[in-house]
Amino acid sequence: MDKDLLEKARELLNRNLPSTTLSTVDKDYNVNVAVISVLEMIDDETILCARFGADRTYANLLSTRKGVFMVLTFDEFQTKEGIRVAVEMIGDETGGPHYQRMRDRLDQTRYKRFPLKNCLIFKITGILPISTLK
Amino acid sequence: MDKDLLEKARELLNRNLPSTTLSTVDKDYNVNVAVISVLEMIDDETILCARFGADRTYANLLSTRKGVFMVLTFDEFQTKEGIRVAVEMIGDETGGPHYQRMRDRLDQTRYKRFPLKNCLIFKITGILPISTLK
Repeated sequence: MDKDLLEKARELLNRNLPSTTLSTVDKDYNVNVAVISVLEMIDDETILCARFGADRTYANLLSTRKGVFMVLTFDEFQTKEGIRVAVEMIGDETGGPHYQRMRDRLDQTRYKRFPLKNCLIFKITGILPISTLK
Repeated sequence: MDKDLLEKARELLNRNLPSTTLSTVDKDYNVNVAVISVLEMIDDETILCARFGADRTYANLLSTRKGVFMVLTFDEFQTKEGIRVAVEMIGDETGGPHYQRMRDRLDQTRYKRFPLKNCLIFKITGILPISTLK
């Protein structure tokens, strides 16, 4: 994995910007995209993610496992910057240290009143810049 | 289709905001998301879209046909607003009035130096608000 892209992914994902999305798909190729912003890239291969709503996203992940996070940011000139991180769900916890870590992170957000349903664990399978346009 | 959601989709998609994305998927459930912002909702059921880069998105659409557009906006308090529009690709043109319409639209953007490869035609299959969180 490209080191610069890894660092960019970590920096952008861990800011938990409200423009962070996760796109997923069901078995019939129906795609969904949801704002999923309470998450943490804890090492070069792993993302923890707080799931408190996102019922369709969760159902899709249980079914096909795969998705892609995108963080999109803009500067004052509307020039875009960001990252795309392809993932595969490898864990789904409802207690324990990973879960508690996401609970603590959720508590620091405007969504703190929501029960944390799951701590989803993703393996990073690929990282792309926002645009590959030449 | 809910009338308010239709009007919101039209208004947001036709602004061609740089935060407009299209999520797609290949036959093996590998999801991709790309910034796709030169497009026009021309009636309650149809979106035309200029394809000048987005090779992976295009390959995915040829393979599975389905995708979802998202437009995400934020006010000064970082409250999010936006729309999600599920689509199915029903046409792919390289000439004619639809193509010319997208060429004209592309010419008004910072991407005008790019050749327009295709005018993609999508049927709208569903519209959702950004959040369904209660």
